[in-house]
Amino acid sequence: MVGQKLYILKLGGSLLTDKQKPESIRYEILTRITQEIINTKEKLILIHGGGSFGHPLAKKYKIFDGLDRKVVDQTLGLSRTHYAMNKFNSLIIKSFLDNNFPVLPIQTSSSFIQDSRQTFSQAINIIEATLDLDIMPILYGDILLSMDGSFSIISGDQIIFLLCRDLKNYKVSKVIFAMDVDGIYIKGKKNEKDHKLAEIIHKKELNDLELVKMDRKIDVTGGIEGKIKAIETILEFEIPIQLINGLKEGYIYNSLKNYSINCTTILP
Amino acid sequence: MVGQKLYILKLGGSLLTDKQKPESIRYEILTRITQEIINTKEKLILIHGGGSFGHPLAKKYKIFDGLDRKVVDQTLGLSRTHYAMNKFNSLIIKSFLDNNFPVLPIQTSSSFIQDSRQTFSQAINIIEATLDLDIMPILYGDILLSMDGSFSIISGDQIIFLLCRDLKNYKVSKVIFAMDVDGIYIKGKKNEKDHKLAEIIHKKELNDLELVKMDRKIDVTGGIEGKIKAIETILEFEIPIQLINGLKEGYIYNSLKNYSINCTTILP
Repeated sequence: MVGQKLYILKLGGSLLTDKQKPESIRYEILTRITQEIINTKEKLILIHGGGSFGHPLAKKYKIFDGLDRKVVDQTLGLSRTHYAMNKFNSLIIKSFLDNNFPVLPIQTSSSFIQDSRQTFSQAINIIEATLDLDIMPILYGDILLSMDGSFSIISGDQIIFLLCRDLKNYKVSKVIFAMDVDGIYIKGKKNEKDHKLAEIIHKKELNDLELVKMDRKIDVTGGIEGKIKAIETILEFEIPIQLINGLKEGYIYNSLKNYSINCTTILP
Repeated sequence: MVGQKLYILKLGGSLLTDKQKPESIRYEILTRITQEIINTKEKLILIHGGGSFGHPLAKKYKIFDGLDRKVVDQTLGLSRTHYAMNKFNSLIIKSFLDNNFPVLPIQTSSSFIQDSRQTFSQAINIIEATLDLDIMPILYGDILLSMDGSFSIISGDQIIFLLCRDLKNYKVSKVIFAMDVDGIYIKGKKNEKDHKLAEIIHKKELNDLELVKMDRKIDVTGGIEGKIKAIETILEFEIPIQLINGLKEGYIYNSLKNYSINCTTILP
């Protein structure tokens, strides 16, 4: 089935929050991005990361590493991590509702479960029913329970992979990562300090890139290498990807409209 | 499979909120009930209704009746109804976290879907994984999407029925409805105004009860008749049910501990 055209837009946690300050949201950026998304009138699934809400707690209670009885109050920490993410998500939901735009959160931790190293999405039909009603589904990095009695974290990037894999009636035509940097930087010809933005990258070139480490500016745990790994899994589905700067006004709008912007496009 | 013993406790919306005032929570009652539940150290699933959070919006936008293009901004109303329920749920979650007690909300609208008049629970394994970790799952009345492009409301009572039907590794040993009244009142022998609390009702007597209408005091849409219908569906699974007054101190604790209280017990 070909399915209806759909975008997936991921808002990096560092775009919407100040990673130095726990539970701090950058309202002016959120408000502008909300408006840009609404203005496009495009059909999309919105995903956001944990930013300064989920990450500090997930780290404190070692949620990434799974059940560990040596970590004091770890299951309480698991609860608190989800609670923080729900709080973050609610602020984003509110931003859309304040503009009379219908959105529905899909609680990731009640929709995805892990079973012997595989993660399964159990709410694909609900996400598609939401899209059918022209309501924008919003998912987010969250805790992930496991069938074997343990748990971990599911990142926004993993959610994107699972959606690209499992959506039935919709076909993802582009995945957009909105970050706080223009895209992927590679080494220039002169010296180490010389670098330039990679504008177009083909899938087969992805592993040979001479990356410039700008981890400070990259959103996700694992830095740019982690992001590239996530990108590779999505490219399996022959879906083009854009890495764009969400701090720059109009970039999210333009990317969702397929207008030209200064960014990195990765082609399958 | 016999499974581990488990209670289901439903907190009526009118117990925790003031139905006359939108989005009003009765904090002193919530705080006391939170403590009673924690003190029991019993394993349970907590369910709550919509109270003054979900009901007014669901009514305003005719969510019960499904998709109707004549209702202005109905999908926005659907979003707002869920948002209000999430807000209510978050206050309950916070009440437990403030007492360092691990809880996890299970977003009902991302865990249940309707398909040609049947409602399916898709997150039973996640609910059981939560219980396995000794984290108390909390579900709530919410919007319900449908595979046919429409929607409605799923009540706390329906959730209970579906859980009793679908739980695999846990066996529900009792369902407790905490309301703002002592239980079911039946007619006394003298006259219409004479009434008494039915202490024990057997399943087969349920349809012959000479009910006293005290709808004002009964929580759920449909009044006491609606509640009795819900009770009948749960009795199918041979699970005893208690209707208790959550306003009375210690009643929830005593019911979860199987201590004697002044209430209505319905036996399968």
